[in-house]
Amino acid sequence: MADSEALPSLAGDPVAVEALLQAVFGVVVDEAIQKGTSASQKVCEWKEPEELKQLLDLELRSQGESQEQILERCRAVIRYSVKTGHPRFFNQLFSGLDPHALAGRIITESLNTSQYTYEIAPVFVLMEEEVLRKLRALVGWSSGDGIFCPGGSISNMYAVNLARYQRYPDCKQRGLRTLPPLVLFTSKECHYSIQKGAAFLGLGTDSVRVVKADERGKMVPEDLERQIGMAEAEGAVPFLVSATSGTTVLGAFDPLEAIADVCQRHGLWLHVDAAWGGSVLLSQTHRHLLDGIQRADSVAWNPHKLLAAGLQCSALLLQDTSNLLKRCHGSQASYLFQQDKFYDVALDTGDKVVQCGRRVDCLKLWLMWKAQGDQGLERRIDQAFALARYLVEEIKKREGLELVMEPEFLNVCFWFVPPSLRGKQERPDYHERLSKVAPVLKERMVKEGSMMIGYQPHGTRGNFFRVVVANPALTCADMDFLLNELERLGQDL
Amino acid sequence: MADSEALPSLAGDPVAVEALLQAVFGVVVDEAIQKGTSASQKVCEWKEPEELKQLLDLELRSQGESQEQILERCRAVIRYSVKTGHPRFFNQLFSGLDPHALAGRIITESLNTSQYTYEIAPVFVLMEEEVLRKLRALVGWSSGDGIFCPGGSISNMYAVNLARYQRYPDCKQRGLRTLPPLVLFTSKECHYSIQKGAAFLGLGTDSVRVVKADERGKMVPEDLERQIGMAEAEGAVPFLVSATSGTTVLGAFDPLEAIADVCQRHGLWLHVDAAWGGSVLLSQTHRHLLDGIQRADSVAWNPHKLLAAGLQCSALLLQDTSNLLKRCHGSQASYLFQQDKFYDVALDTGDKVVQCGRRVDCLKLWLMWKAQGDQGLERRIDQAFALARYLVEEIKKREGLELVMEPEFLNVCFWFVPPSLRGKQERPDYHERLSKVAPVLKERMVKEGSMMIGYQPHGTRGNFFRVVVANPALTCADMDFLLNELERLGQDL
Ligand SMILES: Cc1ncc(COP(=O)(O)O)c(C=O)c1O
Ligand SMILES: Cc1ncc(COP(=O)(O)O)c(C=O)c1O
Repeated sequence: MADSEALPSLAGDPVAVEALLQAVFGVVVDEAIQKGTSASQKVCEWKEPEELKQLLDLELRSQGESQEQILERCRAVIRYSVKTGHPRFFNQLFSGLDPHALAGRIITESLNTSQYTYEIAPVFVLMEEEVLRKLRALVGWSSGDGIFCPGGSISNMYAVNLARYQRYPDCKQRGLRTLPPLVLFTSKECHYSIQKGAAFLGLGTDSVRVVKADERGKMVPEDLERQIGMAEAEGAVPFLVSATSGTTVLGAFDPLEAIADVCQRHGLWLHVDAAWGGSVLLSQTHRHLLDGIQRADSVAWNPHKLLAAGLQCSALLLQDTSNLLKRCHGSQASYLFQQDKFYDVALDTGDKVVQCGRRVDCLKLWLMWKAQGDQGLERRIDQAFALARYLVEEIKKREGLELVMEPEFLNVCFWFVPPSLRGKQERPDYHERLSKVAPVLKERMVKEGSMMIGYQPHGTRGNFFRVVVANPALTCADMDFLLNELERLGQDL
Repeated sequence: MADSEALPSLAGDPVAVEALLQAVFGVVVDEAIQKGTSASQKVCEWKEPEELKQLLDLELRSQGESQEQILERCRAVIRYSVKTGHPRFFNQLFSGLDPHALAGRIITESLNTSQYTYEIAPVFVLMEEEVLRKLRALVGWSSGDGIFCPGGSISNMYAVNLARYQRYPDCKQRGLRTLPPLVLFTSKECHYSIQKGAAFLGLGTDSVRVVKADERGKMVPEDLERQIGMAEAEGAVPFLVSATSGTTVLGAFDPLEAIADVCQRHGLWLHVDAAWGGSVLLSQTHRHLLDGIQRADSVAWNPHKLLAAGLQCSALLLQDTSNLLKRCHGSQASYLFQQDKFYDVALDTGDKVVQCGRRVDCLKLWLMWKAQGDQGLERRIDQAFALARYLVEEIKKREGLELVMEPEFLNVCFWFVPPSLRGKQERPDYHERLSKVAPVLKERMVKEGSMMIGYQPHGTRGNFFRVVVANPALTCADMDFLLNELERLGQDL
């Protein structure tokens, strides 16, 4: 080769690298962190897709760009992105910007390693183990196993795969064709990942039997029992029940004790999808909502939601101590998991997963937890419950707001009834017209950038708002703002 | 509730938040970025697991910690982590620290959004589309589909799931039980994710038929044809061939034209696992290694490997224009993918995946590409090839180094033959003793922190080193160092 110099990219020039990163970091602090979390700024800067494409100039070209241009691009990316750390972002089951978690994420990115072996991730192999131990302890287990997955949907899939493997270890090698028809049970309020998972895992969505939920959204154990009987009568083999702790829309907690009784009677794997509600285990006051969770075989818990650890952070926890995870997923690749290493190869946890490279998802949670302690995190949860309660009481006081139900969690679901529909419940087109209100208000709030709240139809109910009270920086003033803003945006409707 | 103030965490105090993040960023720049990429520093700081646990004090406690303590923890995490951006990190199929990609990652983390809807990720929905378009163009497709997945293993699984769904759309609902026994084909040099995927998807590892590879590690198309015939004769239904462009250990490229011919004859889905080798498409000089890739139905390509975009960055690319991805994976959750939104809901790409929340993986790649241009990235690839060539020539010149084969890619595989074994090939225990050398050298290099190179046994071959020449900051001097260092570490063996 012609020369032995590194390429004329920044990579060879530490001063230029530092200058670039300092400049970008300055932009991040000003635009994403300070303005991005300030109530006096917009939560989003709506642009139509075609206009946004023009503004961003996304095309990748032959020639590289100058540092100045790159910085301008960083600014534009942040400017037109939604500020999920903003106190007026109520749109998803995550909100807020925890500075310690962000610090952990920045360190994670700068170290850019993969979580498969102790060899290249010594700190994170040990840290993941410790964080999982802590989460298991909160579930009520003094031993067990677990792993961080790329999101709760995949954590849920893992549970289903483990349960079928435990019952039919052969299926890893021989597949599902030789097995009887397997069925699993979950309530109609479950997250859609259960269906997606069943399809992906080759079981098919028909294998998911949908159990009734009561009017508050909780699984009805009697119907579970009934459905199990029905499935067995059809010749199907029940193998798993997925209960939900904190349903996606209504925030309902399934009655775990009663469900665990049913599972015990029928010898079924109990999975608890606590992706959203798991963090309530940190609160002495509210953890009773998950009573019975210690009887589960597996739990999916997303600290990236209520704990604001940052996407993604999802743990699958197992009561199993028989190395099921590794037996089910392992393939002993000899190029990565050499058995003649000079350290204990049990530390090479990467063969527990169906991924190869796996992101480090534990550091952000660990660092935040170190900074907050159990106590700080508990206060956050309790504060969120208190604010949700405050919001509910305010909703009850105000005209034109109608609760879908008394929430037991942080999903506050209600209709905004615009002036023209107030007191008109008897009109035949009332529900149809009411259902059109939320989309209009959503459009208005997004275009103004004043706040973001999700809405959805649900069963026979027409579109209602779901306010998620999760951002740790929220105050009562933000709750007041939210309601006032809805009234302002909807006064002419 | 008692008060309407936010919690006394940093979240309420922008000045303290900024101070914390600036301090952490300072540590990151000094320790992870500057020292972490400097050849004069160690690539790793080996500690035995028990000692490391003590040093890190991982336990999560009731009380939170002071900012000073937190900063000390950040320093410790970085100190004891492996520096994958270091020029002496040859251990995996990724290495190096691209400053623009890192900048993109930091912005991604600060914005912390999920890639499912235009509503909350307007910039990234459009950006992902553009980046995928660019990657597809390099494959040779002017239209198609695609998505970023959490790693190449899952991209490969997606391909398998899509292929079976395309042939048997019923299986999404009804599962595999009602289908004939499906089989897929890949070479014995394939990545282990094909086996893992087959198990996870319910097909079972038996459904993977292993095709012969030649002595350079390339799939033998005649054996593929033969195996297809055998499977059909057994009553199985072939549906997919997974060819590899850049195998994990040897860096071999399967002959895609010949394989595509076979697929065409038998009506099979052709998937190309180009997780490692895909980036070669950027090089006019070397892209012939992937000739025929435009005939694939799907391609998995990991820019987090050779392009150093940062973990994770893995694209699944599809030639399909019939919305197969969404039909196969979609579940139309009404709480997230509302159909009465005020913008074109085709922009809500989240229903194409089996995840719900999905990280933004496009920005880091896009920003790096904007800064480098096609030309800058092409130079990198060409430079890596040139350096691998240089290393190979040096290996040939030196005593005590024996190539496993002439590499065609950036995996340089060779044995270090220690002085005591040189010229002793005829001894009956030669191979056994040679096989013990790499683990000893590995232990020594890691404990000294001077460099990291992977080794593995392979087929009937005993342990050999696999040097991966991927870090864009490498020079010939680093190659010389590597060989000298091996000699130094092994001179007494
Ligand atoms: C109850 C429940 N389970 C699982 C998930 C999926 O989690 P993820 O988005 O991390 O895949 C969600 C997401 O909202 C959820 O609400
Ligand atoms: C050829 C090949 N395919 C797929 C993968 C899996 O990629 P990932 O680690 O992103 O899952 C690898 C990883 O090394 C690989 O070498």
